Amino acid sequence: MAPRCEIFSQGEEIVTGQTVDSNAAWLSQQLIAAGFELTRHTAVGDHLEALVGLLIEISERADCCICTGGLGPTGDDLTAEAVAEAFGAPLEFDAEAMDQVESIFKLWNRPMPAVNRKQAYFPSGAVRIDNKWGTAPGFTVNHNGCQFYFLPGVPSEMKKMFQAGVFPQLQESFSLSPLKKVTFRTFGLGESAIQERIESIVFPEMVTVSFRAGLPEVELKLWFPPEQDQQEIEVLSSAIASALGNQLISVSDGFGPPKGIVEVVSELLTEKSHKVALLETVSSGLLASWCVTRPWLLESRVIPSSELLNRDFELEGCSETERALSLAKLVRQKSGADYGLVQLWSFDPSLLKEKRRSMELVTALSTCDGETHHITKVGGSLDRKQNIAAASLLNLLRFHLGTAY
Amino acid sequence: MAPRCEIFSQGEEIVTGQTVDSNAAWLSQQLIAAGFELTRHTAVGDHLEALVGLLIEISERADCCICTGGLGPTGDDLTAEAVAEAFGAPLEFDAEAMDQVESIFKLWNRPMPAVNRKQAYFPSGAVRIDNKWGTAPGFTVNHNGCQFYFLPGVPSEMKKMFQAGVFPQLQESFSLSPLKKVTFRTFGLGESAIQERIESIVFPEMVTVSFRAGLPEVELKLWFPPEQDQQEIEVLSSAIASALGNQLISVSDGFGPPKGIVEVVSELLTEKSHKVALLETVSSGLLASWCVTRPWLLESRVIPSSELLNRDFELEGCSETERALSLAKLVRQKSGADYGLVQLWSFDPSLLKEKRRSMELVTALSTCDGETHHITKVGGSLDRKQNIAAASLLNLLRFHLGTAY
Repeated sequence: MAPRCEIFSQGEEIVTGQTVDSNAAWLSQQLIAAGFELTRHTAVGDHLEALVGLLIEISERADCCICTGGLGPTGDDLTAEAVAEAFGAPLEFDAEAMDQVESIFKLWNRPMPAVNRKQAYFPSGAVRIDNKWGTAPGFTVNHNGCQFYFLPGVPSEMKKMFQAGVFPQLQESFSLSPLKKVTFRTFGLGESAIQERIESIVFPEMVTVSFRAGLPEVELKLWFPPEQDQQEIEVLSSAIASALGNQLISVSDGFGPPKGIVEVVSELLTEKSHKVALLETVSSGLLASWCVTRPWLLESRVIPSSELLNRDFELEGCSETERALSLAKLVRQKSGADYGLVQLWSFDPSLLKEKRRSMELVTALSTCDGETHHITKVGGSLDRKQNIAAASLLNLLRFHLGTAY
Repeated sequence: MAPRCEIFSQGEEIVTGQTVDSNAAWLSQQLIAAGFELTRHTAVGDHLEALVGLLIEISERADCCICTGGLGPTGDDLTAEAVAEAFGAPLEFDAEAMDQVESIFKLWNRPMPAVNRKQAYFPSGAVRIDNKWGTAPGFTVNHNGCQFYFLPGVPSEMKKMFQAGVFPQLQESFSLSPLKKVTFRTFGLGESAIQERIESIVFPEMVTVSFRAGLPEVELKLWFPPEQDQQEIEVLSSAIASALGNQLISVSDGFGPPKGIVEVVSELLTEKSHKVALLETVSSGLLASWCVTRPWLLESRVIPSSELLNRDFELEGCSETERALSLAKLVRQKSGADYGLVQLWSFDPSLLKEKRRSMELVTALSTCDGETHHITKVGGSLDRKQNIAAASLLNLLRFHLGTAY
């Protein structure tokens, strides 16, 4: 049985909704991957009585608890005091912690306010967790057989302290069997379309399948029990990869995220030192903005209206497709890039704004070997249409450069 | 005393961290604004025993609870069953609810799967909350003096059902005194700079001040007790507005968010039917992407390198500022727009990528009356630099068009 873990977030800004609690989600992902069962998230404000009650409750339910927030220097920061009261462990001064807080202020070249002295007091029996990235050291205590870890609420500090100070301790203190995970990143398929594609594949019994629909990409995640045979995982993974076909952008079998479409195309372009010139319409600069600092982006033009297009380019052909192909060629030739990548549509703004109406995108690519194109239908919100349009441009180039991930 | 309210989120995807629980934050904001005290958020997975225990716990602590998730048709969706068990209220079939679910499938032109019949069973004594936007009707029950509202977890459905079906009931069932709120949206000042600017202003005793640092804008929020004198609020608000000066973009004294910089500039431009041509460097198309469907955006060019800039434009002047001013003029004249808006920098990619290094942006505006410019220093992550660069372009135009909000 996996040990049971809870997440406890402290702070008025969480419980009043001023801040979305992304710490809880991030920590849960790390802990599930490490082999814990995640049973509950709780958030309360800065009230001593509520904190004390909750700490006792959790100690009775869970084997492990990660707590964030409430370690700052001000009167609202009550975590250490609440732990002291809940677990009958009076606060004690930790001279080494005081040195660490003082040295952070020295590093910042600022005098330490007197209130920060508070951050060096921990409940008796607690073990300090060093914070090299901010002023609030954390600590860990055990009560009722539940191991508590207290970390600051600032996400960047919390994450670094978890990785450096908590994660290694968890692996020592608990008998953990980490799950195995494979993630497939796709573009051009919705969740139900992915489900249809993989319908005929037989999955081992204990696999959990989940989806993460981002914009513009959708991820398919498989979680395997720790004892799952590695070769079986590989056979299944390649069956899924075949089923996803060209729509598969990348696969990750570690716990890091798989590469996105910008990264995949960048690697292929950088290998060849090739340059790209873009002409964006519906995406309105969104693709160029994703590619900031990418050395292969030679230039991009945003053309919001057909009037401007007709003024600046003499396009041949009567169909949208013919016009897109000739435009791609012009963009490539004018810019001197290796690839010209353009997108045309009907230039009817109402189609973009109305959620219920879908629109057709004609994407065209020009290379020294000739032109190619792709037609995509896209519906939904303006945001969705803009994101799909941007990714469709890059996706045509990905097809051309080689679809192997 | 304000009634105490809790948020309860159900679902494996929340507790395992696959989904960040933004529902809880959104609901908390609505409820605080309505006059509730928010005391706790809890999330658990799809386990009957955990759900039953939690429902009983909450009924003993709170006056009101909004629950999301677990109303779908599959075996994982256990909310109605858990309520039936926890509150001793066996499930009963609701023929009207069944009609509603069926009519949604008719609207979608799809046959209703048999499993969806489950969504028409509610605990005895529950009152249905209609869902016109999806298949899962909600319901409300009272237990131990706590009024529970159960809504689906899909954010778009949940929000519409809350506004149409729950909010009016809350106002009838509870004696609420909504807080008064004023929000100031700023660009170009960090939290500590805002604090310095308003330091000498005397605030009434019971005002709560909070910040929301977005990219690229920062919001300052004031919450007043319900009984606060309206004139006092207005006097304080105008003192703050003066202190924030040109950096104030907009103010909202309702519960909607204040207008962002794109909206403010759009209104000023649309009034005059003026057109803008952009040349982006550091922002790399981000500003154009924010302005999709805005009729005043004539065109935008993204120029990532100094080579391309020198190839395409003959710029006069030796300083960066002189070059930016002449470029703005060229962009305006070539495009035929009313305003030419450009930004130059040193074109050193390492400055963009390194968090610890800051960079200088020279933003220039050309109008029929001449040219003007602005110099901004910006540090931090690539994302921050790109966002500040995009907003700085628009901000120079905002200054020119009139800074009154």
